[in-house]
Amino acid sequence: MNHATKKKVSAPHRHGEKLLFTPGPLTTSLTVKQAMLRDLGSRDQEFTGLIREIREQLLRLAGVGEPEHTCVLMQGSGTFAVEAVLSSVIPAQGKLLVIANGAYGTRMAQIAKTLKISTQILEFAETDKPSLPQVNAALWQDRGITHVGLIHCETTSGIINPVEEIGALAAKAGKIFIVDAMSSFGAMPLDMEKNHIHYLVSSANKCIEGVPGFAFVLARRECLEAASGLARSVSLDLSAQAKELDRSGQFRFTPPTHALAAFGQALRELEEEGGIKGRQARYRSNYETLVQGMRALGFRELLPESNQGYIITSFLYPKHPDFRFEDFYARLNQKNFVIYPGKVSRADCFRIGSIGRIFPEDVRALLAAILESLNEMRISLEVSLP
Amino acid sequence: MNHATKKKVSAPHRHGEKLLFTPGPLTTSLTVKQAMLRDLGSRDQEFTGLIREIREQLLRLAGVGEPEHTCVLMQGSGTFAVEAVLSSVIPAQGKLLVIANGAYGTRMAQIAKTLKISTQILEFAETDKPSLPQVNAALWQDRGITHVGLIHCETTSGIINPVEEIGALAAKAGKIFIVDAMSSFGAMPLDMEKNHIHYLVSSANKCIEGVPGFAFVLARRECLEAASGLARSVSLDLSAQAKELDRSGQFRFTPPTHALAAFGQALRELEEEGGIKGRQARYRSNYETLVQGMRALGFRELLPESNQGYIITSFLYPKHPDFRFEDFYARLNQKNFVIYPGKVSRADCFRIGSIGRIFPEDVRALLAAILESLNEMRISLEVSLP
Repeated sequence: MNHATKKKVSAPHRHGEKLLFTPGPLTTSLTVKQAMLRDLGSRDQEFTGLIREIREQLLRLAGVGEPEHTCVLMQGSGTFAVEAVLSSVIPAQGKLLVIANGAYGTRMAQIAKTLKISTQILEFAETDKPSLPQVNAALWQDRGITHVGLIHCETTSGIINPVEEIGALAAKAGKIFIVDAMSSFGAMPLDMEKNHIHYLVSSANKCIEGVPGFAFVLARRECLEAASGLARSVSLDLSAQAKELDRSGQFRFTPPTHALAAFGQALRELEEEGGIKGRQARYRSNYETLVQGMRALGFRELLPESNQGYIITSFLYPKHPDFRFEDFYARLNQKNFVIYPGKVSRADCFRIGSIGRIFPEDVRALLAAILESLNEMRISLEVSLP
Repeated sequence: MNHATKKKVSAPHRHGEKLLFTPGPLTTSLTVKQAMLRDLGSRDQEFTGLIREIREQLLRLAGVGEPEHTCVLMQGSGTFAVEAVLSSVIPAQGKLLVIANGAYGTRMAQIAKTLKISTQILEFAETDKPSLPQVNAALWQDRGITHVGLIHCETTSGIINPVEEIGALAAKAGKIFIVDAMSSFGAMPLDMEKNHIHYLVSSANKCIEGVPGFAFVLARRECLEAASGLARSVSLDLSAQAKELDRSGQFRFTPPTHALAAFGQALRELEEEGGIKGRQARYRSNYETLVQGMRALGFRELLPESNQGYIITSFLYPKHPDFRFEDFYARLNQKNFVIYPGKVSRADCFRIGSIGRIFPEDVRALLAAILESLNEMRISLEVSLP
């Protein structure tokens, strides 16, 4: 990452547009969206050049490169790419251990089961990090386990899981490590080698700040090539997609050309912001502004600070008899702020994201709108120190 | 379709932009692309309203409606939606008969085989329409056949297959009829009931003139509901997607929000052009301008006129020793015209599409560029009457 290119990036004027404080699709810059104002031929040289640049740069962001690693772009949402990995790299006699503490871990296990892959799910509470001794025990207990799956940032709660520690345990046990880094990739440094990751999955519309339409898998080439021919699907065949991208520079089936053009621009803007470190600083600053403001308004987070990432934060419903989330959501929406419902099973919360093309001044505007909405609802919260 | 709303639609000024004479992604209008200049929340009311409208209008275009039919949107390219249908509606003990005369028919069979669905492929030459007596014989010969698959416009050659006749035969034999109408839907009237179609698949970036990112399946609700729980995939589970769209109005997994916003605008512009009939007239006029001009330049079509549709046309390489397609393609590209390589196996051809936001004046500009390119290549073709 060339830090010399770092520019001061600040919040643009918002022309009455809605701002998305969600886990994605996120608010993107106007220039990213403007990159979609052209139609590119999907087999044309200009477009294959764009694909090549995107693949190379994504590998660099994960601290790796060709030929040891390869980047495979896949149409659809992040879930499609997670399924593409499971469908394409786990042999019939393989077994997947999913370490789960939220809906996305559960979904990974559900995908594997639907694909008739032998699957063990090691479940932890949605508010807890996985216990490393328990993970280690599971890794050694069943010698049939070939692959381990983990969600890096579990968007269900916003918890950040210990990918490096689990990667080290998986490597020691000789397992292939699959990481769903959907909500974290681009928001925090994540070196594939250092974290012993064989397959890393993320999506265009997360912290690279592109628009939705495709996802990507960063893979150790040796592993992926060894898995050739295993896929249980044609559309989601990761190996076939990798081969065609290498051979002709093209997708096998129609790619979302406009979303890819937007992504090329988003990668340039990530570079201009100082790469992942620059972006991380802004997201952290969004998060800190948010949490301090929310606490001052009387809200409390679901997670203890030690488990809480700066990507998305779950806030408990306030204990006020007049608080109804739907009303609160609608009032914020009317003021052009989109927040997100909660997803944890055992507590009433809502979520606010700190990612996407939003800035601390946008977060302060959201906080003002939250205060205004509470006033409209005639709710005043008691502020207690956490 | 309200024909009273029909406006005169004409070619816009092209600001040095490339024009795509391909099978898709296609040239779209500037206003369709401009609809992508906003970020919509994927679970927000405005977006779910857009999804509802799109689903309703797509059904209307196929001459059907709720509740007998339902429209299921699916992330990814058209192939993803074809796979979603096969994966989700053919039971383990079912059998698929694919009627194939090109690469897309072959692909449908390949998908079914990969999904371990019992499959019979009835193959015809790429330049021939399927023989109805042979189709009928195959339908009655193997009583195990439950589903029949057909490509409406086989983009390999540009041939239009007799969907109504085959639909009638399939109905008589009591089979479920799956039609890939990828390149034809929106370009010609296609009534699901009249053609005995149970599942119709098409894509956002074809003749509705949206941008790529998703595809759609129009289904007889009764059939789809009877198939619930059969899917061999989570991402491509058509039944689960339909249920969630009905229940919450949302996709199960991140939708391509910008591509959907563009599609909403594309549907409005289809309506303004006089619906499918208006669009059909423009595409026909593009095709006629193209073929007359190409013949005058000395080119000949691959297919006899009786088999040729007006969607995409395969032209044989001219029999001139200096003609090299790569050079011809590159020269046209430099002049901002993107054509498409051929795909039939037994003849050297290239393809030129008549679909997308292009007009007869654009086709004439392409013809001028073709003449200029031939002159640059010092190729003069002998013009013979066909």
